[in-house]
Amino acid sequence: MVTKEIPDIIVSRLPIYLRALQRMLEHGIQSTSSQELGERVGISAAQIRKDLSQFGEFGKQGTGYYIPFLVDKLRHILHVDRLWDVAVIGMGDIGHAVARYQGFSNRGFYVAMLFDIDPAKIGDKVGELVIRDTKDMVSLIREEEIRIAMLAVPALAAQPVADKLVEAGIKAILNYAPVSISVPTHVHLQYIDPTIGLQRMSYYLD
Amino acid sequence: MVTKEIPDIIVSRLPIYLRALQRMLEHGIQSTSSQELGERVGISAAQIRKDLSQFGEFGKQGTGYYIPFLVDKLRHILHVDRLWDVAVIGMGDIGHAVARYQGFSNRGFYVAMLFDIDPAKIGDKVGELVIRDTKDMVSLIREEEIRIAMLAVPALAAQPVADKLVEAGIKAILNYAPVSISVPTHVHLQYIDPTIGLQRMSYYLD
Repeated sequence: MVTKEIPDIIVSRLPIYLRALQRMLEHGIQSTSSQELGERVGISAAQIRKDLSQFGEFGKQGTGYYIPFLVDKLRHILHVDRLWDVAVIGMGDIGHAVARYQGFSNRGFYVAMLFDIDPAKIGDKVGELVIRDTKDMVSLIREEEIRIAMLAVPALAAQPVADKLVEAGIKAILNYAPVSISVPTHVHLQYIDPTIGLQRMSYYLD
Repeated sequence: MVTKEIPDIIVSRLPIYLRALQRMLEHGIQSTSSQELGERVGISAAQIRKDLSQFGEFGKQGTGYYIPFLVDKLRHILHVDRLWDVAVIGMGDIGHAVARYQGFSNRGFYVAMLFDIDPAKIGDKVGELVIRDTKDMVSLIREEEIRIAMLAVPALAAQPVADKLVEAGIKAILNYAPVSISVPTHVHLQYIDPTIGLQRMSYYLD
């Protein structure tokens, strides 16, 4: 379907549109305009129309967007019309929180495997899942063909564990550790960094 | 210093530039170009030059940016050349993780107060801080003049607690709950949502 290269900056906005549209659906709203969507996500209506036009004709002049259709299209474009198994590495506070997080359901991801290096934690259950030993991580991730990992280990462990994840065939890492890591160019990397959100707001405070 | 209205989309990119520049400084790098910075943050060099030009002349043609100067300027612009006290509400897994997070240091924020509604948790210490009772939240936040809160309560509690935070004078909320909340227009709101980061990567997976 998508034949041309889409700039990553556009890709980065699609999940934000999708989240807002899914919330509108949950509230029983079936159609919207680029103006209304723009107000909800803080992005200009013109930018939204331009971004979405990269993928085809989704809206109609005058009537706007039919949300169920647009949600389906965005889920397809973002490859979240399927369920991705995700491995969580590091079962400290963040790892536990992520493993129990309710916000993944219906959005394309399923926490399927948990790992820690601490013998006191290995074998413990979080929900239905048993915490596995990090030393078996490479083989287990390979066997289950998991492609996505959330990295919630301490800062000093982040790079060596990331190297192992790459070895295991992981293609996308969401890094919660407050440290920069390096991965090969074929592996995708995103950071969860609360400071970014805080600084974006402190700009407006005095 | 800043006299004109800067679009929020530009403001949203400044913390990303600042984080990358601070990491470069930590690695002993003293100067950079918009090209190099752009590669590190995944934003075009032209966009970076345009964004930074909103705030003055930071770089020199041919020699690029002197990082310590640019870091100082960005910290000033984002109001993180001071330390903001932050209250954390909800001391479950995420609240604990946030309270112990090492990534705030040197970036403008200090976790100063913890709250929970659970009598079993109230009075417990996390690091040096005692968990306070949410029923005292409004008066304590007012007394200490805290302006920023991180909301880590369960989804169902998010809106009522946010209402209390607004009543207490909070001006910026970082919401970890996987639910949309409403705040008055004078209150700033950001979400920490791992699904956004995951979907941004799943686009590239097949």
